[in-house]
Amino acid sequence: MKSLNESHIFQEIHQQPQLLEVLLTSQKESVNGLVAALRERDVDHIVIAARGTSDNAGRYAKYLFGALNGLTVALATPSLFSIYQHPPKFGNALVLGISQSGKSPDIVAVLAEARKQGVLTAAITNVPGSDLAQEADHLIDLCAGVEHSVAATKTYTTELMAIAMLATAMADDGELNKQLALIPQAVETTLNLNERWESDALHKGALGRESGFPGRSIEQKAQRYRYMRDCVVIGRGYNYSTAFELALKLKELTYTIADPYSSADFLHGPVALVENGFPVIVVAPSGVMLPEMHTFIQTLKANGAEIIIISDDAKTLGLGYIQMPLAERVPEWLSPITAIVPGQLFSMHLSYARHYDPDQPRGLNKVTETH
Amino acid sequence: MKSLNESHIFQEIHQQPQLLEVLLTSQKESVNGLVAALRERDVDHIVIAARGTSDNAGRYAKYLFGALNGLTVALATPSLFSIYQHPPKFGNALVLGISQSGKSPDIVAVLAEARKQGVLTAAITNVPGSDLAQEADHLIDLCAGVEHSVAATKTYTTELMAIAMLATAMADDGELNKQLALIPQAVETTLNLNERWESDALHKGALGRESGFPGRSIEQKAQRYRYMRDCVVIGRGYNYSTAFELALKLKELTYTIADPYSSADFLHGPVALVENGFPVIVVAPSGVMLPEMHTFIQTLKANGAEIIIISDDAKTLGLGYIQMPLAERVPEWLSPITAIVPGQLFSMHLSYARHYDPDQPRGLNKVTETH
Repeated sequence: MKSLNESHIFQEIHQQPQLLEVLLTSQKESVNGLVAALRERDVDHIVIAARGTSDNAGRYAKYLFGALNGLTVALATPSLFSIYQHPPKFGNALVLGISQSGKSPDIVAVLAEARKQGVLTAAITNVPGSDLAQEADHLIDLCAGVEHSVAATKTYTTELMAIAMLATAMADDGELNKQLALIPQAVETTLNLNERWESDALHKGALGRESGFPGRSIEQKAQRYRYMRDCVVIGRGYNYSTAFELALKLKELTYTIADPYSSADFLHGPVALVENGFPVIVVAPSGVMLPEMHTFIQTLKANGAEIIIISDDAKTLGLGYIQMPLAERVPEWLSPITAIVPGQLFSMHLSYARHYDPDQPRGLNKVTETH
Repeated sequence: MKSLNESHIFQEIHQQPQLLEVLLTSQKESVNGLVAALRERDVDHIVIAARGTSDNAGRYAKYLFGALNGLTVALATPSLFSIYQHPPKFGNALVLGISQSGKSPDIVAVLAEARKQGVLTAAITNVPGSDLAQEADHLIDLCAGVEHSVAATKTYTTELMAIAMLATAMADDGELNKQLALIPQAVETTLNLNERWESDALHKGALGRESGFPGRSIEQKAQRYRYMRDCVVIGRGYNYSTAFELALKLKELTYTIADPYSSADFLHGPVALVENGFPVIVVAPSGVMLPEMHTFIQTLKANGAEIIIISDDAKTLGLGYIQMPLAERVPEWLSPITAIVPGQLFSMHLSYARHYDPDQPRGLNKVTETH
């Protein structure tokens, strides 16, 4: 087996800061063109068609377009278009397809129907010549280069960035634009915080006796979970998307049965799963959701869960047995772009620790065509 | 420990045929009143706010209102209303809250905001005096009686029925009404098919050597899974809802890590989980989705999965190692109301086989109030 540093996924994860920077400048014009069309048509809601990792980007869009732009977002039900052939009426919507390859027939079918209904369409894809791009009035090209690893990493964060660019351009707020521009550096910082040995413990001051070895690299932290068979991943609000995407990476790369949940939904039933030592990964960056997550973490700890925390906040990190730090000063609405990064690294290192090939998970091809 | 037959959940599961019958007649007028209001306002899409089991009923509504009524359905993001306080604009929507107790503050907040925006609101709840009902212009009362068991069963199928009644009334199609009227009996038949010992194997003809003991009761079939730690539950289209609800019952009642998926989404990554003997429950009733499910089952079998099938179709049942039969001649659009029934029974019996109290799962209260 080749060394981890030579793998595609290692390289693709580490390309992210640079690719996010490229996207920010190269697609500005495309995004502005789409925003002009949205205004011209006075579009009042958005329907998103996507699968897998791109569907998780859609989950982010649902919160972001709601909070920043006051738009209701529906995730499409592709089978109504492809198999049942009873497509609903879109009304005055933007229908947005998100797909790395732009190839899955069921996603393309949603955009084709939207065109038939005379509705505005757009595609976010890494393949500008794809079927999906052909069906779209507007294209945002991820410009991420070929993604060789089967598990998506750089196309996920660039999809999130494309969505954030669109929401920011619609909101037309200079302050938001400035925050957006800082994200590539924040992703770089987050990579460094997790990958590198830290001789000085990062959040030493805030960590109590239950410390999760803050000085260790994520590669070392992953060793502890070599034989973890299942776990739950929790995020809420903007980071509902992060919980889903991290759970998907764990499934694809490490074959862990990782179940994603919003903290609120988790309390409506699945919390029954938690027994002593049950591993729960909690995504809890700074922001208005954080007090809610603190309460939730205390409930889990009372039930004996083993808490793994992803956060930029020292106090919050201190609530976990294992900590995965994020760059500080990232506003909550952009935090999913940094918050997934430790999850990507953790899944990759755990895959390697289990002697799997992280570039080629069993049973998967890079392009999945579903009908 | 009291015997299973004395438990609340056993009784509530078996009350379902009668309660569905009651609902069909008692709420006809309420449903018609809501449909008149929908027409008067020319409502063009629906936003649903729900959590847990009720959210799974919302998943059914998403497909049904789309296929029968051509309406786009968005599942709400309650935290945008309660925590972020950036509620999106609803436009010309019906905002529909679904909740057994009608009490969860985050769900109530979505309806309160809808009222503030002057949008049409409706509640489907088992508690007509609840906060949710107070916020709603229209009420559909589940009339299911007090649900004592913490895990919802009869309020799930009555929620599905209420949704089906609404979709049918909007479609104003006599044929659909006739199909609806047959459901209480079909649920009764499904209960009998699964609970009773069958001396004559039900689908004997179609079952090959890989037979999953069709002559045995579901209680006996559940024994095999005494030590199952995790599994996947698959459904697509209308029965996407069934996959989610069955997985939730398994979590609540048996503490199995049960991960629900659409067959299409499952192929976009999570299929990597499947190794020899991995248990996969497939919900595959007759209908236009069935050929798709056959192809999917073959893929799983090629990967060595242990297939448990829920279906009314003898050939499809024959593809599984263990079979859970459904009443025949239920049209696909109503199949979720019967398809969950073996899942309820299976989860209950497995809970009992594990010496858990099926009426009182650990860590849960009947009413969960999330913000």
